Amino acid sequence: MRMVDIIAKKRDGGELSKEEIEHFINGYTDGDIPDYQVSSLLMSIFFNDMTQEERANLTMAMVKSGDEIDLSAIEGVKVDKHSTGGVGDTTTLVLAPLVAALDVPVAKMSGRGLGHTGGTIDKLEAVDGFHVEITEQQFTDIVNRDKVAVIGQSGNLTPADKKLYALRDVTATVNSIPLIASSIMSKKIAAGADAIVLDVKTGDGAFMKNEEDAVELARAMVSIGNNVGRNTMAIISSMSEPLGYAIGNALEVKEAIDTLKGEGPEDLTALCLELGAQMAVLGGAAESLDEAKDKLRAVIDNGEALEKFRVFLKNQGGDASVVDDPFKLPQAKYLFEVKAEESGFVEEIAAEEIGIASAMLGAGRQTKEDEIDLAVGLVLKKKVGDRVEQGDTLAVIHSNSEDIKEVEQKILDNYRIGSRENKIELIKQVITE
Amino acid sequence: MRMVDIIAKKRDGGELSKEEIEHFINGYTDGDIPDYQVSSLLMSIFFNDMTQEERANLTMAMVKSGDEIDLSAIEGVKVDKHSTGGVGDTTTLVLAPLVAALDVPVAKMSGRGLGHTGGTIDKLEAVDGFHVEITEQQFTDIVNRDKVAVIGQSGNLTPADKKLYALRDVTATVNSIPLIASSIMSKKIAAGADAIVLDVKTGDGAFMKNEEDAVELARAMVSIGNNVGRNTMAIISSMSEPLGYAIGNALEVKEAIDTLKGEGPEDLTALCLELGAQMAVLGGAAESLDEAKDKLRAVIDNGEALEKFRVFLKNQGGDASVVDDPFKLPQAKYLFEVKAEESGFVEEIAAEEIGIASAMLGAGRQTKEDEIDLAVGLVLKKKVGDRVEQGDTLAVIHSNSEDIKEVEQKILDNYRIGSRENKIELIKQVITE
Repeated sequence: MRMVDIIAKKRDGGELSKEEIEHFINGYTDGDIPDYQVSSLLMSIFFNDMTQEERANLTMAMVKSGDEIDLSAIEGVKVDKHSTGGVGDTTTLVLAPLVAALDVPVAKMSGRGLGHTGGTIDKLEAVDGFHVEITEQQFTDIVNRDKVAVIGQSGNLTPADKKLYALRDVTATVNSIPLIASSIMSKKIAAGADAIVLDVKTGDGAFMKNEEDAVELARAMVSIGNNVGRNTMAIISSMSEPLGYAIGNALEVKEAIDTLKGEGPEDLTALCLELGAQMAVLGGAAESLDEAKDKLRAVIDNGEALEKFRVFLKNQGGDASVVDDPFKLPQAKYLFEVKAEESGFVEEIAAEEIGIASAMLGAGRQTKEDEIDLAVGLVLKKKVGDRVEQGDTLAVIHSNSEDIKEVEQKILDNYRIGSRENKIELIKQVITE
Repeated sequence: MRMVDIIAKKRDGGELSKEEIEHFINGYTDGDIPDYQVSSLLMSIFFNDMTQEERANLTMAMVKSGDEIDLSAIEGVKVDKHSTGGVGDTTTLVLAPLVAALDVPVAKMSGRGLGHTGGTIDKLEAVDGFHVEITEQQFTDIVNRDKVAVIGQSGNLTPADKKLYALRDVTATVNSIPLIASSIMSKKIAAGADAIVLDVKTGDGAFMKNEEDAVELARAMVSIGNNVGRNTMAIISSMSEPLGYAIGNALEVKEAIDTLKGEGPEDLTALCLELGAQMAVLGGAAESLDEAKDKLRAVIDNGEALEKFRVFLKNQGGDASVVDDPFKLPQAKYLFEVKAEESGFVEEIAAEEIGIASAMLGAGRQTKEDEIDLAVGLVLKKKVGDRVEQGDTLAVIHSNSEDIKEVEQKILDNYRIGSRENKIELIKQVITE
């Protein structure tokens, strides 16, 4: 089997066999197939796409290129959730205890990552004492007993995907549905998920700027999952403005607590119920999405979800009293109110730029070595559709520096105030097959 | 300027600017742009093609990537000819003296090359004493005086093309019209041609198997030439069977002499008149192709073309008496006749395979280090459309080994004899703009 023939076949619109895909992925992982042949194949895939079977085979070849996490010691269907990334996305912090409260096991492997704010582990570390340095045995035991735990990433997962991603980035082959879909799915599968729920974002603050592309990506991933024996569902949600009010690590923990109490932002609550319902159905805790949503609302109302969050924090060394006293979370030294300069309706909040404003305060990481300031961030007071009078507070800056002129200006620049009373449709589509 | 943006632009169907093309070619030549980005761009070009302006700019960027031969000391319009390659192609040996006899300067830089038989220099070296080790000054003086000389390739011509070609070969991007056309044209232009005549072959023995592709390639090259100020014409000729009768180095020299005498094979003669007419028109020796053909026939009939060949050989140390006594050329030890095993018409001769049969005798080179046997080769006795009786000689093998079973079988396997009296149309199209 020669790589040049595999490239030519895809270039001419042919369908690659399982063996051809494995030859390519294994050869590339081992360093036997050079970058210049792989980039040529990737560009052919960009133009000629892949069939559902090719996508499934590519995904599994990448899974098999490295270690696979074995979660078989954990009872029940292990459902994982993946979001394609946005600004102020606090869903994981809410969903983990919420779904666990329905006895669906949440065995989460998580990372720190780069971005406007930290990863799930960074956020949780805002709770004094909380840590993810637990053994695999402890992880398994905790999940079997209390249904929820988070562990740091370990092992050499999907090395083929890591190499391919780095190459795609410099060869203009990032924006290819089969390549994006197989990359995401391979990571989730290698991390041991039996079933997967996907939150595909669309809009200004998302990777997929338009809804049509987001739907295509979601369908591609759902199809891959189902083709390789992992039940998968997805929703398409709006990232036209930041999700919820809080953008920042400790601030998002506080917002997650509010949401588990039933006092969270409307959009974040709605999204968590939608994603949580899919997780509950896939995890066998409900027959239908509607039934699942009722059960989730019930555990919020009766306090079981909040109690599960307390247990979750305690199990991993965290001070669970933050749930009742959020001032125990890291607090920024200075609070600044950003005031509206004109009256009208908030027509638009450019999510991406607001995320960058938060990162400028120190809430996020540009490189792996950067230290995150867990206390800082933004709390929005007005969202799209809200009425604003001149002088009203649009957002509060939580900062450890007094010099916030640039951040303030960025916020003002990215709140568009006008005469239209826009309404964002948060959940755009629910894709169950 | 970033290479990844250039790739993305071409991927999305954009037109690359002169500056972008030069950035890519210069960066690649210098080693600043890696293979994996270039192969990704090449595949984008394969899918999205290039405009006429892009092709012209790519060609000139490759020309400027290395040395350019300066032929300005030679008077007149220097016309070069290029063939896309076939089997038994003796045209250059005929055309050089033929066109020079009309006072069109033929200042030929030539190579040895790989293939079924040797390059032009190898063939000419079958004439005792002939050599191409002349100085540039001698070369110029000879052409100014006698209008024809051949010199070996020197200088670092089109290094970008050499690197690109090697990369295309292993990334399935060879078959791209803009890339093939710019590669060929850059080499001719760097070698100093003022005007260019192209013989684009089509059929079984050619790179372009079907006529439509050959026409597209020819038009692409003519357009590039005219866009960069080099008058260019082309013909599309058939390579459905070997050209002429002889395939082998000394054997082709003998056939060239016959043709210059007016006694050559019909197809080779016709092709030389067609190409020679284009060269004569571009070189200013005739107003029209018809007028040029009349003049070329005249110098064959009156012996001036043959005399020019004598002068050409003598000027470069060759024994010109071979013209009158072809047995002075290297002779193979053994001649074997390949006899027809059935009666009928020759319906087809698979040119490529017949070329390989000749190479098996030692007429060609597989690697640069191989020694060529100038004496050996094949002389066809029957061509497509000829009537054959069982036992008639199809071809004569000229060999220096007695073991010719495999070659004989290959010839028999590749002569298809049947009931159809096929006729090959040699000159398929003439493209003058």
